[in-house]
Amino acid sequence: MSTTARAAALELFEHHRGTLERAVQAIAERGYWSPFPESLKQYPEEAVKGAQAAFEALLGKHFDLAGPQAVGRAGAERSPYGFDLNVSYDQYDADTLLARMQAALPAWRDAGANARVGACLEILQRLNALSPTLAHAVMHTSGQAYMMAFQAGGPHAQDRGLEVLAYAWRAMAEVPESALWTKPQGKQDPLVLDKRWHVVPRGLSLVIACSTFPTWNTYPGLFASLATGNPVLVKAHPGAILPVAMSVKVAQDVLAELGFDPALVSLVVDTPEAPVSQQLALDPRVKLVDFTGSNAFGNWLEDNARQAQVFTEKAGINSVIIDSVRDLKAVARNLAFSLSLYSGQMCTTTQAIYVPRGGIRNGDELVSFDEVAQALAGGVKSFLADNERACAVIGAIQSEATVQRIQACRELGEVLLDSEAREHPQFPGARVHTPLLLKVDAADRDAYSEERFGPIAFVIATDDTEHSLRLAGEVIAEKGALTLGVYSTDDAVLDRAELLSQDVAVALSINFDGGVFVNQSAAFSDFHASGGNPAANASITDGAFVARRFVTVQSRRHGAA
Amino acid sequence: MSTTARAAALELFEHHRGTLERAVQAIAERGYWSPFPESLKQYPEEAVKGAQAAFEALLGKHFDLAGPQAVGRAGAERSPYGFDLNVSYDQYDADTLLARMQAALPAWRDAGANARVGACLEILQRLNALSPTLAHAVMHTSGQAYMMAFQAGGPHAQDRGLEVLAYAWRAMAEVPESALWTKPQGKQDPLVLDKRWHVVPRGLSLVIACSTFPTWNTYPGLFASLATGNPVLVKAHPGAILPVAMSVKVAQDVLAELGFDPALVSLVVDTPEAPVSQQLALDPRVKLVDFTGSNAFGNWLEDNARQAQVFTEKAGINSVIIDSVRDLKAVARNLAFSLSLYSGQMCTTTQAIYVPRGGIRNGDELVSFDEVAQALAGGVKSFLADNERACAVIGAIQSEATVQRIQACRELGEVLLDSEAREHPQFPGARVHTPLLLKVDAADRDAYSEERFGPIAFVIATDDTEHSLRLAGEVIAEKGALTLGVYSTDDAVLDRAELLSQDVAVALSINFDGGVFVNQSAAFSDFHASGGNPAANASITDGAFVARRFVTVQSRRHGAA
Repeated sequence: MSTTARAAALELFEHHRGTLERAVQAIAERGYWSPFPESLKQYPEEAVKGAQAAFEALLGKHFDLAGPQAVGRAGAERSPYGFDLNVSYDQYDADTLLARMQAALPAWRDAGANARVGACLEILQRLNALSPTLAHAVMHTSGQAYMMAFQAGGPHAQDRGLEVLAYAWRAMAEVPESALWTKPQGKQDPLVLDKRWHVVPRGLSLVIACSTFPTWNTYPGLFASLATGNPVLVKAHPGAILPVAMSVKVAQDVLAELGFDPALVSLVVDTPEAPVSQQLALDPRVKLVDFTGSNAFGNWLEDNARQAQVFTEKAGINSVIIDSVRDLKAVARNLAFSLSLYSGQMCTTTQAIYVPRGGIRNGDELVSFDEVAQALAGGVKSFLADNERACAVIGAIQSEATVQRIQACRELGEVLLDSEAREHPQFPGARVHTPLLLKVDAADRDAYSEERFGPIAFVIATDDTEHSLRLAGEVIAEKGALTLGVYSTDDAVLDRAELLSQDVAVALSINFDGGVFVNQSAAFSDFHASGGNPAANASITDGAFVARRFVTVQSRRHGAA
Repeated sequence: MSTTARAAALELFEHHRGTLERAVQAIAERGYWSPFPESLKQYPEEAVKGAQAAFEALLGKHFDLAGPQAVGRAGAERSPYGFDLNVSYDQYDADTLLARMQAALPAWRDAGANARVGACLEILQRLNALSPTLAHAVMHTSGQAYMMAFQAGGPHAQDRGLEVLAYAWRAMAEVPESALWTKPQGKQDPLVLDKRWHVVPRGLSLVIACSTFPTWNTYPGLFASLATGNPVLVKAHPGAILPVAMSVKVAQDVLAELGFDPALVSLVVDTPEAPVSQQLALDPRVKLVDFTGSNAFGNWLEDNARQAQVFTEKAGINSVIIDSVRDLKAVARNLAFSLSLYSGQMCTTTQAIYVPRGGIRNGDELVSFDEVAQALAGGVKSFLADNERACAVIGAIQSEATVQRIQACRELGEVLLDSEAREHPQFPGARVHTPLLLKVDAADRDAYSEERFGPIAFVIATDDTEHSLRLAGEVIAEKGALTLGVYSTDDAVLDRAELLSQDVAVALSINFDGGVFVNQSAAFSDFHASGGNPAANASITDGAFVARRFVTVQSRRHGAA
């Protein structure tokens, strides 16, 4: 190990220590806290103004990163807003890359927890400074509208990264570096052992990024593994490489400046025709795999990458149960935003809305099922009436497959609100589609109990709230979910929902009818996924997310009392 | 949930809180600490004097436990000291038992972390009081000599149980019960959410006990799962049911007195002819499996119990590397005790001893390989010369298969010290055999790199210490190990060994030539297994051992600032 690199990283640790300690306090209290501002006004004016140009300067070029000798190039990203990025990236021989990263491991391990966390904190701070530019890269790969791409792809992603560092650091700090073990022996001298403990990483870490949240869903695994000593391969989705590459570059810059091998964080790019995730995930040197994406591949990883600890966030049937409301219009407005935001392409977006077929109480009056359904459809319709405002919320559809899914799903029920193709005010070629809302019966379980990724939701007629609770519970137990919303003015129903949420381990949002939405998840406060139902086998983030990324190895020798 | 039961358990929590807080301090400091005395003198005289009679009163009878209607009886334990216990135990219909435990889960979950931990602390204290009697049950199932059965099966096992409770409680206490989340909105009113978090157990927990350490290896999984809210099925080894049954009874008594279903901790007995572990481990309701035992079954569990978090402690090739010593006789005395204790039936006992074929430095002189080998053999021989003292250390061989293995292994190398059958002074029918020590060459890898469970060890001639380090590293990386010892007067070699121990994630003991032994592992200080090599996929005990046994489920609703 280079002692210079370690010393320099420890300086960064001291520099950022206040932030880290505040973050550790935040994860213990879980009130509101964020060190990374979510308003562009709080970023330097030149950074905000120059962001577009800085992004455009990357287009049509090769993106340079540190790594072994390249054996090829790949990259064919196309913005969901209708243009090709024309950026290429190096491809490496997998064995050469893994051998290089393996060789870099001991120095990173031996630098110790504080040095590693110091480097990671510096990486996060530099990522934050890059946020306005990064936002364009996130926008033009994921399809998120700019403001969401900025917030979710920038400060919110960085918040999650810091949250993970707080967990990782706390877990490592709970292992003492050394102790004198002095066991009394009655009248004889005590037995004395001088003991030392080392935090030892598992090995190489593979983080498989997704196309919809290329930074938000990548940073947790990346920082959890890196902080605990594991070199990280970040395998970008072929449709969303640039924001990942930019993030890897920031990490490599910091590592290289400190004197560590920058390849400790390496980018892996592949193509839909020649995917490499499976091969990498099965490599015996890969001991950690983080994945966000489809159930099919997530389950494959869990079943096959047996040499590794596998952390997956897959799909589920996010649900809302409507029993009774104080103000149906307020509820409809709230759900309209949830259903519209990023065209339902969030892993937390509601898909199944259970409503008793006999109707519900709305304040003092009874409203029929159809009135509720129409209120929801009307809510979305009026929310998206202004096309410019609509486009600033719904963004673009990341993948053509999602557009096709919207069309295919129209057959699954009675159309309450049809999906419309929209013209984007700035990007005429953008792939913009509003939500599809369908009415189905509880008996049409095949329709609503499969994940329909994208802006597709079902209003489901049930016998009564009892039935809604039972159905939602069954579907979530079987298929998983990240979010469950419930609307009721009856405390007994809310208590039932609170127990149900524990039975199927899903986060519950109660009577959201204001400015907070079921699909939003705030770092340092909300646990994103519980890890306790089929939608995800891990939570972002809790103690279990970091504890399995390292082991503790001890040595002991005779000591003097 | 019965609020009375919860309140009563919370009283126990307050009663034992001081012990728990001291335990939490201990796991952070990892110096010497033990709340449960390991000297019989510190137990009430009548408990010690009456222990034998209390144990004998259990023999030849049916052992009553709480549970559903029994569908049969099993139990055919035979003491390794040569007599049948003639104790029978109820067998239940698996589906009925699991359904009952599943039904008991919500009340236990909803009691909360402190109430559950309070009940567990009371269970441990009562187990401690029972230690002198429990020791007879451990002795006459495992074959351990009485003093070891008392210490390892009583206070040391209870220490591990308490250590686990400290980890579990700390992990659960790190999740706040509630918080007000207040997000500023500039000049507008802040967004305010009232958030609650629940620690939610995974489901049913299956703890598969072993025959050699029926309590020590069972309590960690049992208490880790129970404290975090998971009902526990303890599947006893057919050869060592009684100490497990006695432990389950203590747990059931405490649970029933509090008003919880005693079946929250249930005993499962089976027979070698009709084993039930596989069926239980695959049941979808079983979400946690703890196992100590063979690689074959441990690997099967890891490969097949995919619906569960699986924690295994299997077998490995515990190793010692001798490079140079200050006092060969002291080293030989130390290793003689390690090899002899409980006839090498500890999962931490050394099997492979690497010595350069050109000999080693012993203080100022050079000694040949054969002199080292003879010193080790002579050390064991003289340590066991006094038969009464020998029997008090080596105890009896738990299983006839181990006796046969000793015979079979005699062919694997040159016999340095042959195993002898001994007559036990109190138990003429006891299965007592001294260690077998073989000389082999480094090239005879098949001989020493397979686990040979029992009092069987190899002195392996290597080219030099470099070769010893490389071989030990390769074998441990491939087959795993819980312990590695190194003897060297050269700091450079010790530094190499310290790095090697991290590379293969094995606990290192350096120059043990006094009153501490490589196969001993002290709760609150030593991590037993790292979980980072093939000998075990979990450590007893660290944060990862408890973090995966529960998930956190949140609810949130609009609140007032």
